[in-house]
Amino acid sequence: MAPHPFDQLSFEETQRARDIILKLHPDTAIFFRYIFLEEAPKAEVKKYLEAEHAGKTPDPLNRRAMVMYDVIDSDKVPVYNESVVDVTSGKRLDHNVVGKEFHASLTVPEFRLLVQAVEKSEMFKKCLEEYHLPKGYELVVEPWPYGGLLPGEENRRYFQGLCFAQDTSSKNADSNFYSFPLPFIPVMDAATQEIVRVDRIATGGRGDPMEPESHPKNPVDHCTPSEYVPELLPNGPRKDLKPLDVVQPEGPSFKVTDDSLIEWQGWRFRVSFNPREGAVLHDLHFKGRSVMYRLSFSEMTVPYADARYPFARKQAFDFGDGGAGTCANNLSLGCDCLGVIKYFDSIVTDAEGKPEVAPNVVCLHEQDNGIAWKHTNWRTGRAVVARNRELVVQFIITLANYEYIFAYKLDTMGGINVETRATGIVSVVNIDAGKQSDYGNVVSEGALAQNHQHIFCIRMDPAVDGHNNTAVIEESHPVAMNEKTNPRGNYYEVIKTPVKNSRWLDADVASNRVVKITNPSKTNPISGRPVSYKFAPMTTQLLLADKNSVQAQRALFAQHHVWVTKHTDGELYAAGRYTLQSTREEGGLADMVERNDNTENEDIVVWATFGLTHNPRVEDWPVMPVEIHELKLRPADFWHENPGIDLPTNKNEASRLANGDSCCSTNGANGTNGHAPNFMG
Amino acid sequence: MAPHPFDQLSFEETQRARDIILKLHPDTAIFFRYIFLEEAPKAEVKKYLEAEHAGKTPDPLNRRAMVMYDVIDSDKVPVYNESVVDVTSGKRLDHNVVGKEFHASLTVPEFRLLVQAVEKSEMFKKCLEEYHLPKGYELVVEPWPYGGLLPGEENRRYFQGLCFAQDTSSKNADSNFYSFPLPFIPVMDAATQEIVRVDRIATGGRGDPMEPESHPKNPVDHCTPSEYVPELLPNGPRKDLKPLDVVQPEGPSFKVTDDSLIEWQGWRFRVSFNPREGAVLHDLHFKGRSVMYRLSFSEMTVPYADARYPFARKQAFDFGDGGAGTCANNLSLGCDCLGVIKYFDSIVTDAEGKPEVAPNVVCLHEQDNGIAWKHTNWRTGRAVVARNRELVVQFIITLANYEYIFAYKLDTMGGINVETRATGIVSVVNIDAGKQSDYGNVVSEGALAQNHQHIFCIRMDPAVDGHNNTAVIEESHPVAMNEKTNPRGNYYEVIKTPVKNSRWLDADVASNRVVKITNPSKTNPISGRPVSYKFAPMTTQLLLADKNSVQAQRALFAQHHVWVTKHTDGELYAAGRYTLQSTREEGGLADMVERNDNTENEDIVVWATFGLTHNPRVEDWPVMPVEIHELKLRPADFWHENPGIDLPTNKNEASRLANGDSCCSTNGANGTNGHAPNFMG
Repeated sequence: MAPHPFDQLSFEETQRARDIILKLHPDTAIFFRYIFLEEAPKAEVKKYLEAEHAGKTPDPLNRRAMVMYDVIDSDKVPVYNESVVDVTSGKRLDHNVVGKEFHASLTVPEFRLLVQAVEKSEMFKKCLEEYHLPKGYELVVEPWPYGGLLPGEENRRYFQGLCFAQDTSSKNADSNFYSFPLPFIPVMDAATQEIVRVDRIATGGRGDPMEPESHPKNPVDHCTPSEYVPELLPNGPRKDLKPLDVVQPEGPSFKVTDDSLIEWQGWRFRVSFNPREGAVLHDLHFKGRSVMYRLSFSEMTVPYADARYPFARKQAFDFGDGGAGTCANNLSLGCDCLGVIKYFDSIVTDAEGKPEVAPNVVCLHEQDNGIAWKHTNWRTGRAVVARNRELVVQFIITLANYEYIFAYKLDTMGGINVETRATGIVSVVNIDAGKQSDYGNVVSEGALAQNHQHIFCIRMDPAVDGHNNTAVIEESHPVAMNEKTNPRGNYYEVIKTPVKNSRWLDADVASNRVVKITNPSKTNPISGRPVSYKFAPMTTQLLLADKNSVQAQRALFAQHHVWVTKHTDGELYAAGRYTLQSTREEGGLADMVERNDNTENEDIVVWATFGLTHNPRVEDWPVMPVEIHELKLRPADFWHENPGIDLPTNKNEASRLANGDSCCSTNGANGTNGHAPNFMG
Repeated sequence: MAPHPFDQLSFEETQRARDIILKLHPDTAIFFRYIFLEEAPKAEVKKYLEAEHAGKTPDPLNRRAMVMYDVIDSDKVPVYNESVVDVTSGKRLDHNVVGKEFHASLTVPEFRLLVQAVEKSEMFKKCLEEYHLPKGYELVVEPWPYGGLLPGEENRRYFQGLCFAQDTSSKNADSNFYSFPLPFIPVMDAATQEIVRVDRIATGGRGDPMEPESHPKNPVDHCTPSEYVPELLPNGPRKDLKPLDVVQPEGPSFKVTDDSLIEWQGWRFRVSFNPREGAVLHDLHFKGRSVMYRLSFSEMTVPYADARYPFARKQAFDFGDGGAGTCANNLSLGCDCLGVIKYFDSIVTDAEGKPEVAPNVVCLHEQDNGIAWKHTNWRTGRAVVARNRELVVQFIITLANYEYIFAYKLDTMGGINVETRATGIVSVVNIDAGKQSDYGNVVSEGALAQNHQHIFCIRMDPAVDGHNNTAVIEESHPVAMNEKTNPRGNYYEVIKTPVKNSRWLDADVASNRVVKITNPSKTNPISGRPVSYKFAPMTTQLLLADKNSVQAQRALFAQHHVWVTKHTDGELYAAGRYTLQSTREEGGLADMVERNDNTENEDIVVWATFGLTHNPRVEDWPVMPVEIHELKLRPADFWHENPGIDLPTNKNEASRLANGDSCCSTNGANGTNGHAPNFMG
């Protein structure tokens, strides 16, 4: 069977894409970066999906691959190329030699080069000789993107390495070296693969100079271990937390066919995976009606607020700089999820463009999320209560010290929650013993966790009952008491404003601002209002950096909560296509909005920006408890009733009393549970 | 053993309290309303707790009861009395004949009187004769509090009944009558127990007059059934949702001793239950250190925004008007929770003051809430991941059509989530066929769900490492680029402002406003900062009614997000002690703050207001999907590391692959799960 247009490239298709490029660049050294599905133009896919949903066999679309690679020129200088090839026909459809002002996303092999360059650098060796690592401690170099170029810097491709000391006495390679931060950062020029500079970092506290001063020989002598692997914990793991198992004796309620097609409780969608965005949902339908063409995590940025050099550069774009998919964990059973789990694999490629299976990068499972709805008739004592089952599509990424858990959670009542969890190890720098800082919090002796923000952007390409939608801003406003419309002062007014042209808007608590993605051509037969899906813009702080700073200029997407744009093929990235070492957001949301496209009853895209200002607490150390955010999409006059009103309401027979008794005396069959009181509402 | 000062009154203590009152009012008709524990003065309890926590046997405190009752005078007019009696000594400690300007909270027997009054009312009969209920439909009268008196109304004690028609053809007493709202409301005078008025309700739509006009004989002929009990669903309950069981083979991890003392994963606290607030937590300690003296749901108000008469009165205070405890559901196994469940009973009293056990009004269970923390060392491929276990103390109340689920959720990392879920059946009024309204949404033919708000208030009486605490407002502010403190523009400033005197404050997204409840005398040894628990004021819309309206005047607490007051014994209620038919909030938060008490390093109380503006959607019908809100309290520099760092990180052996395979090939023991990628952060 021909692959579906949304299916990620197969092993064979990836190989074919590579071979096409090699043939197009004969007698040339090629450094492959990424090969993944280039989605077909929406106009073509729409026709395909129409046929598919009409129950016909659609004409298969030719398969396309995006191939990202460096051509190594005669001077051994890499030139970054992007080609779109038609894997079906073997033809190249598009070829772009990317200008030197832009940098390709990082790849794993490049990071290895940095570590090698540090090892052989005389300059770094000299720096190290100024210090004494404590006996039994070894240097660890943690590769990082260089960050946004500061004014005056030449736009070369750089890498930097954060340095730590690891206690080797335990002979445990997972001893937590982040507790021992070293105050210098080697910088590599990617073209020469040499360390060109070692930046020294100030280790002072409040009131101390911003520039590094003289330093002790042993900069980590005041640092203390803080372990997280169970065998290194001073008292081992706790033993009084008894097992809690999720058991699904009849198996899961979901069905996966065709590799990527998932069906569950009225939902029908496809999942794909690519190196930049990780897992993406496509063609979401609920109860046979279209909701969303494409749903993805588009970008995130993590700017740090330490005013000292070189931390103005410390700002990751974890999707654009390296790729969320590239950094995805290979999950395995029982650790990351409970219950019955289905995993999805993906394909990664090496520097030669050769494909390899990346196992278990996405997991799928069901979970219980408490009560879905309940009503008790106090007259009869009859209580009817349904549980809130969710279907979770999850992937987890590791970015050196930090982890993010991304999940799309669909529920039985038509709701979609898009969830982020931030965890992992907060980024720390060395601070002198006994000092405090305005730039962060001392979370372990000698380790300053710098204040920072995490700002995410979710991209929603809606198709609410069809592709032409209008975003409507709905606000609830007080109305001054007046004889005509509000004689007793209790009335408030609901004001609806359609978004007629591409624009941004911010969350507004005072007016309870909500965005409804409506289909103005389809009316709910009961309410007479246009069908819609709605969400509340998330009320989290936007980017704090000065508007004129590099941090702010390259993250314009992070400065407003919601953006509405008109769909354009390939426009997937909130901060633009090239974020690595960028100094300005190019082709990102601000540029898209600038077009001032008509967005009324059009094929629109809605973007939601949110995040957390993370001023660390000691409890975030050594591995931080998850910080959870959820964008909640809800049907609003989309369906003709609560879509979960027919959920099972019978008792769960597996539950037990704390004394071990099994399901206690019921006082009625089929969902009754005792009398309720006798009151008002 | 003597009861603990926080234990709710026992059956016998309740009886004794009743008998004391009867003896004090000989030869008098007494109508008992409520009898429950009057907590001992904090000064006494503090001494008791000091001894208890020092491992000594504290001197027992005398037990006190609050008894609320009407003395029926010679003219048969009830006079409302409140007495505090010492159950141990048999003495009355306090007696208050409450002024006629205040009304006692409603009781169940009073509601029965309303239904009886309607049945025998000639006035109501006449009204009903103007209408024809469809064949096979019967009248249902739903008792409601009268609401806030409108200007000019005499301050008598009133009841009102919302009227509906129930289809009896199914012979099912749980057929949903709310689909058939009738356009009139009988009003009873409590003193005479007679229907004194039948308010007619307008049924028009947008542009129609606000006053009721001529009406059709059969006002519900255009209404349609919308059932929620499984046996009445047209297609029955869905069959493709397979069971998901929570199984705890070794039993729960919590321990309940002494009836009310709960210990779990470092947490130690007591739970009590009373008619007004429902479940209350007392004396919360985490890992042997005090966090909170008392944690409770204090009040909520539900004002409706329909500008027509009589809906300016439609505003419930569900804690003050009737009592959350009074309305609590008797829970039973497997419907409301999964896993291993422990129930707590309470005591209710009847009009004669006789106690009766109210079984299962509170439930206690553990639940899994996804990943607690994770880190993968990309060098070694070692992933360590812990699950987020929570302990839930839950109660559920039914207020005629509406349900609320209240939960205190403690986690293993020192966090406390205080959760509300709104569900049940939205309040509807009759609307003519085919019309739409500015006052709400038509959710079922002929049924207009009016726009309204739910505004909750949580009361926190903190004791962070001791009783004297300071609330500190912490904000993150941008700083303009400047040579001296912010040369590259990436710095932001964290500004801390202690709350020196009682005041209110609002949420502020722009500054990421956070409230830290600190103990200024205790310093975290690592960060050097005061130990604290923090929360972000919830960014939800405040009360919308005009400030001069009765709705607003009686709900001042609902007009700011956070209130900081100095502790005063008995000051538990955000909207004041007497809310029923109130026209102004008396003794509530605004009055408390007015005292301008010193609140720095004092015994403070912190109140959090939040809620939802509920402009109903069709999907909220017939029973609405839960709307969830969570106040998140987190330790901030309270502990010396992540308190959950020693959580078990081993695989869950009960999880399965979707194909039925058991725990798949592991690639490492003890919490490792595969390699992770190689990247930055």
